[in-house]
Amino acid sequence: MERICLFPGSFDPITLGHVNIIERAVNLFDKLIIGIGTNSSKQAMFSLEQRKEWIANIFKADNRIEVADYQGLTIDFCNKIGAQYMLRGIRYVSDFEYERAIADMNHALAPNIETVFLTSSAFHATISSTLVRDVIRNGGNAKQFLPELVIY
Amino acid sequence: MERICLFPGSFDPITLGHVNIIERAVNLFDKLIIGIGTNSSKQAMFSLEQRKEWIANIFKADNRIEVADYQGLTIDFCNKIGAQYMLRGIRYVSDFEYERAIADMNHALAPNIETVFLTSSAFHATISSTLVRDVIRNGGNAKQFLPELVIY
Amino acid sequence: MERICLFPGSFDPITLGHVNIIERAVNLFDKLIIGIGTNSSKQAMFSLEQRKEWIANIFKADNRIEVADYQGLTIDFCNKIGAQYMLRGIRYVSDFEYERAIADMNHALAPNIETVFLTSSAFHATISSTLVRDVIRNGGNAKQFLPELVIY
Amino acid sequence: MERICLFPGSFDPITLGHVNIIERAVNLFDKLIIGIGTNSSKQAMFSLEQRKEWIANIFKADNRIEVADYQGLTIDFCNKIGAQYMLRGIRYVSDFEYERAIADMNHALAPNIETVFLTSSAFHATISSTLVRDVIRNGGNAKQFLPELVIY
Amino acid sequence: MERICLFPGSFDPITLGHVNIIERAVNLFDKLIIGIGTNSSKQAMFSLEQRKEWIANIFKADNRIEVADYQGLTIDFCNKIGAQYMLRGIRYVSDFEYERAIADMNHALAPNIETVFLTSSAFHATISSTLVRDVIRNGGNAKQFLPELVIY
Amino acid sequence: MERICLFPGSFDPITLGHVNIIERAVNLFDKLIIGIGTNSSKQAMFSLEQRKEWIANIFKADNRIEVADYQGLTIDFCNKIGAQYMLRGIRYVSDFEYERAIADMNHALAPNIETVFLTSSAFHATISSTLVRDVIRNGGNAKQFLPELVIY
Repeated sequence: MERICLFPGSFDPITLGHVNIIERAVNLFDKLIIGIGTNSSKQAMFSLEQRKEWIANIFKADNRIEVADYQGLTIDFCNKIGAQYMLRGIRYVSDFEYERAIADMNHALAPNIETVFLTSSAFHATISSTLVRDVIRNGGNAKQFLPELVIY
Repeated sequence: MERICLFPGSFDPITLGHVNIIERAVNLFDKLIIGIGTNSSKQAMFSLEQRKEWIANIFKADNRIEVADYQGLTIDFCNKIGAQYMLRGIRYVSDFEYERAIADMNHALAPNIETVFLTSSAFHATISSTLVRDVIRNGGNAKQFLPELVIY
Repeated sequence: MERICLFPGSFDPITLGHVNIIERAVNLFDKLIIGIGTNSSKQAMFSLEQRKEWIANIFKADNRIEVADYQGLTIDFCNKIGAQYMLRGIRYVSDFEYERAIADMNHALAPNIETVFLTSSAFHATISSTLVRDVIRNGGNAKQFLPELVIY
Repeated sequence: MERICLFPGSFDPITLGHVNIIERAVNLFDKLIIGIGTNSSKQAMFSLEQRKEWIANIFKADNRIEVADYQGLTIDFCNKIGAQYMLRGIRYVSDFEYERAIADMNHALAPNIETVFLTSSAFHATISSTLVRDVIRNGGNAKQFLPELVIY
Repeated sequence: MERICLFPGSFDPITLGHVNIIERAVNLFDKLIIGIGTNSSKQAMFSLEQRKEWIANIFKADNRIEVADYQGLTIDFCNKIGAQYMLRGIRYVSDFEYERAIADMNHALAPNIETVFLTSSAFHATISSTLVRDVIRNGGNAKQFLPELVIY
Repeated sequence: MERICLFPGSFDPITLGHVNIIERAVNLFDKLIIGIGTNSSKQAMFSLEQRKEWIANIFKADNRIEVADYQGLTIDFCNKIGAQYMLRGIRYVSDFEYERAIADMNHALAPNIETVFLTSSAFHATISSTLVRDVIRNGGNAKQFLPELVIY
């Protein structure tokens, strides 16, 4: 059976940390779908179209990787696209606790879906989209944390 | 002296995790008051009346357990109702740190009131009202995390 | 029903941190037994007799508090003395995780026994028997961390 | 390319927690080798032969799962058996930090090997081999934490 | 070379915890600038002028200590005032992780600036501006957590 | 007044992580003494002479940095050499809690001595002497984690 995995997030914007997780995880799966979750209450810095375009361009050479967007429960989107796995990268201990709480609840709701974790490589553990947005908002230069194709 | 305890929270809604903590703690006290703290800045998903009704119905067979609501400082409410104890359940490490900060400050303000902690049982550690509300908001089925009487 | 509680530990030696937890918890229970767990593999700094004597002297004015020693599983000793509760003080986050693991396992083995946690007061959070022993071993003065009756 | 994974540990003894991680992870890989690391300085409770026999019996119906033992660096054993992945289960935050330190160092030494993490299911998060051995050593009954085939 | 340090924060209001960190750190530096970061999205309880006045009054006897305010990236303000160091106090583990993430990112953006950490003394670890504001907002008495000159 | 700092540890062996902390901290102080604590109960992998020689060679070009060894309480050694500061690097959250406990106790015993913390740079956070010794003991190549002058 084909192993399909969803990598959910807001990717606002995609960082070198995300790229590192994706590149290290992609061989585990036959298809890896990068899923941009959207919900009306949270205002993104970059438009959904812009975020999808960046991701599509970065990974266009690898046809195992796709980008999509969804609303609603992440596990419902997994079931819709046939993903038996979810991928999450963990940078910090506090990330870990939050991720585990979500994973536990998702497992209770959808026991057929497993969440697989990779830890951020030391070099990329610094990078979070939230901090990157802070840098951008305050006029700083965030280029070193972002893929070359992410030009804002 | 009668041992009176306040179990403060927003109970939006009460979950099986809360029920588990209450059932395991109730024998420690002569009276256990479930106190719904309300403050104007935070919008609840369920009305105060609805939340109180659910709690009252769930525990109506046990006359040691009551439900109340309050505004202002939790320690002021403790003093008003004569509670020498506060009860808190801890699920996660990050819960613990926040709870300890609150407990330390409360102890500085009101040295006569002790905060007593129970850890969530493994089976219920998954359940938080916040995640339950996310499931409900996204059209998911949260029944397995809620007491039967909580029908929304 | 009488509420009986075991406060297990090695108390090698009893510190002001322990005394603080005991004094804040004692009103919750009708009887509080301070239980010194002994096991052959771990070498104590102070003899069992010495440790029991210190504790007995410190609390001799309060007939709700007793001292005892035991071998084997802590829950077996609880059942033997009729304790429905165990008391544990938590200083640090890493304490908390370890304590919760023990509490979870104890609850699985003996569902009739609840572990109740208090957090160390800020002023006493510094004090651990392990660090106190290090100070003593290196010729330092640990008096400020110990009850007056603990003279070594 | 065949996906081969090593699940390293001491399995002294294998618990229901280990079994749960293995069953949830096995579909991710084409082959999953349970590797018992041995080193002379640490004394096991159960003999290596006993531990291997238990594991072999538990998973004998699934020919994707094998058991092996090794000495020396875990990444050297991975390379010897052609494993591109290592699997680790995480129960607690403190586990996570230690596991990440090991994974970081392994990644620095062998960038071709990825460590994949699953979190313990809530129901099994209680169970650690260390605590299980404590129960056994103190004459307690650890059956509820162990696979039926682990009879000691 | 003169050692100049920025102690950034919102100081809304300055607490005894802040004062303790400043007093213990000041000898490390030749000049210590207390920098109130302001950004339009976050509404303070006390006006910038009020906060600056309190700080200036508290430290008016020590001419190594100054107060300033800034907008934008903290590292840009460091460079503007010639600070090679940033000072941060850590109360809790969760503080630590967040502080480290910020420090890592700042180090990547400005390798010439080091962030130096002090841990809160046990007695002051309780005190956070956030909790102090909660007490004030709910009509409680927060005097014991505040310098005498902070009268609201 | 001259600012003198002790950087205590076992440095068994000194790693690139230690070197990174030292280089980033040295400008804060007028003199930085690297102090190798020795105690009879812990068996080192490398001899005290070897460890001192490596450190002396690595920093011989910087006359602000010295190496020494000591027995007994670290604060007693600080007082002996006139150090008002201790330096510690923090890699992980669990490091932080342990370091804070030690720092709290040291501050209680010697209020004139402050412990200053730096966080490991992301690139060096991987490296601990303990893990390095594991690699060496198992015949692995630990060169990438060690200064060039550390040849074993």
